[in-house]
Amino acid sequence: MIRFDSERAFAEALASLPAPDREAIAAAAGRQAMLTKPAGALGRLEEIALFMAGWQADARPALHSVKAALFAGNHGVAMRGVSAFPPDVTAQMVGNFRTGGAAINQLALACGAELSVIALDLDRPTGDIAHEPAMTAGECLAALSAGAAVVTPGTDLLLVGEMGIGNTTPAAALCLQAFGGASADWCGRGSGVGHEGVARKIAAVESAVALHEPYCHSPFETLRRLGGREIAAMAGAILAARMQRVPVMLDGFICCAAIAPLVAARPAFTAHCLAGHCSAEQAHARLLEHFGLEPLLRLGMRLGEGSGAAVAVPIVRAALAAHNGMATFAEAAVVSGL
Amino acid sequence: MIRFDSERAFAEALASLPAPDREAIAAAAGRQAMLTKPAGALGRLEEIALFMAGWQADARPALHSVKAALFAGNHGVAMRGVSAFPPDVTAQMVGNFRTGGAAINQLALACGAELSVIALDLDRPTGDIAHEPAMTAGECLAALSAGAAVVTPGTDLLLVGEMGIGNTTPAAALCLQAFGGASADWCGRGSGVGHEGVARKIAAVESAVALHEPYCHSPFETLRRLGGREIAAMAGAILAARMQRVPVMLDGFICCAAIAPLVAARPAFTAHCLAGHCSAEQAHARLLEHFGLEPLLRLGMRLGEGSGAAVAVPIVRAALAAHNGMATFAEAAVVSGL
Repeated sequence: MIRFDSERAFAEALASLPAPDREAIAAAAGRQAMLTKPAGALGRLEEIALFMAGWQADARPALHSVKAALFAGNHGVAMRGVSAFPPDVTAQMVGNFRTGGAAINQLALACGAELSVIALDLDRPTGDIAHEPAMTAGECLAALSAGAAVVTPGTDLLLVGEMGIGNTTPAAALCLQAFGGASADWCGRGSGVGHEGVARKIAAVESAVALHEPYCHSPFETLRRLGGREIAAMAGAILAARMQRVPVMLDGFICCAAIAPLVAARPAFTAHCLAGHCSAEQAHARLLEHFGLEPLLRLGMRLGEGSGAAVAVPIVRAALAAHNGMATFAEAAVVSGL
Repeated sequence: MIRFDSERAFAEALASLPAPDREAIAAAAGRQAMLTKPAGALGRLEEIALFMAGWQADARPALHSVKAALFAGNHGVAMRGVSAFPPDVTAQMVGNFRTGGAAINQLALACGAELSVIALDLDRPTGDIAHEPAMTAGECLAALSAGAAVVTPGTDLLLVGEMGIGNTTPAAALCLQAFGGASADWCGRGSGVGHEGVARKIAAVESAVALHEPYCHSPFETLRRLGGREIAAMAGAILAARMQRVPVMLDGFICCAAIAPLVAARPAFTAHCLAGHCSAEQAHARLLEHFGLEPLLRLGMRLGEGSGAAVAVPIVRAALAAHNGMATFAEAAVVSGL
């Protein structure tokens, strides 16, 4: 099991990202060309099959073990009135996740993913990023390692999701620090806050980035100062997945913001990621453009929890079903074109 | 079982389209408002749950029986060199569907749909629409009824798909007749024909519409003159579904073109339809705009067979899983917002 015991261990992992298996991709492409359909007629399903072949190093990739990890954390900045819900809701929703009543419980079941819920020190909110770092180095390493711990050998696809009242604010701060622009570009209504709440969020994000930017010399330091526990845990999980060549289905804005500092430092970081869904939260489309990822779905969802990623999983199942199960032109005695 | 024994029976069905159940929709919306998520946070999943509630007349709609019907036909116009494949491939692919080797076999299995394959007089291609009607009235009624026959009581969702070498040409003619524009607006590369083939298709569509337009006084007559057997069968199936309040997941360009004459006559005809996927075939996006439907998926597929519809089915499953399985704020003891 991967742990990040030091800032150096995290930096070294990010500096030595493995690549997909080119031979498996070529073999899978060779198979695609023989299947009973016009060349390219399955569109992105064909691309997904090659993507999975590359990361599984297998020309016939499979989706036996899909894991969804849902991380929860609380945020000091939530006290600034940046959310439509009070901070107590984070713990209440964790209870709901554990008794199976939330959207992600049903969506994970529907897509055949095994769901884990990891609550991270909910009784100890992070520091208010508008005037102090979110976490100590030790707290950030613990969160990164809690994320890495969910990536077990044999996982065919990993989904990560989050719950944390107020967490679109640190997410927006991470994006502003990583990709620039105006604070307002990265601040939306989140779970449904009104105009005054959005204005408070924009101000908090501006203050936070102005305060911490001079010290953001590494993805670790950026996550520690501007992130949160569930955010660092998602970054740790997605990095640990890459280290083990496990492909990842990204979820919404906060999930993607968690890796914004990693992508800013290493643009190829997202090579093992599919973007499951583009959120209704306005900043998500902008962020996916910076990542160079085209989302599989645009269904106007804005819930987090891993919900958008879960709805996209059956597209991967469809891609692999066609890739592995179709007959070739020769097998089916079909003429392969004029 | 619904049959269309006369042109009048078809016209009467189209003139008396049932509406969804408003009470079930209201009850489903009331439930949505109590579930443990910010209002509207599941986006189109919530709309789909209400859509299904309306057509199933049940505030807790279900998806037990999903049926996929795949119709095959041959086209006289195929002899004009409008396809990348020879006409024999229609029958060869029907063999492939029956032995389970085609994309739709795998995609239907992956989405939990029961697949039927209906080959319609493959040894008797329709008339070449560029200089004669595709079918006699009797042939068109037989095809419409073959389509209607697949819609059995208890079907929760119907998918229709097609296979027919050359059938983007009659599909384009139906669209041009229904919605106008230029012939080239509705003619794309289909299964992969080259520029010269596209030019032949544009010319054939222009000739066909110029020849038949003066006689296209009803959707039936338009289908008979410009359509094809598998095309009329899909129109019959989708109309029979509406008569029995069975919702339909539309597939690609040809599936949608099959109902273009019905939609032109009755714009509300698509109320029981979801658009599963927008095809890479350029005319499909234009057609969906005329229908007022926003596709669930845009994955660059262009295969037909019902493949795009099948990939979209799990989105409906996800929508209903969340709608039926989530806890309410009261059940989960979660505070419902500030």
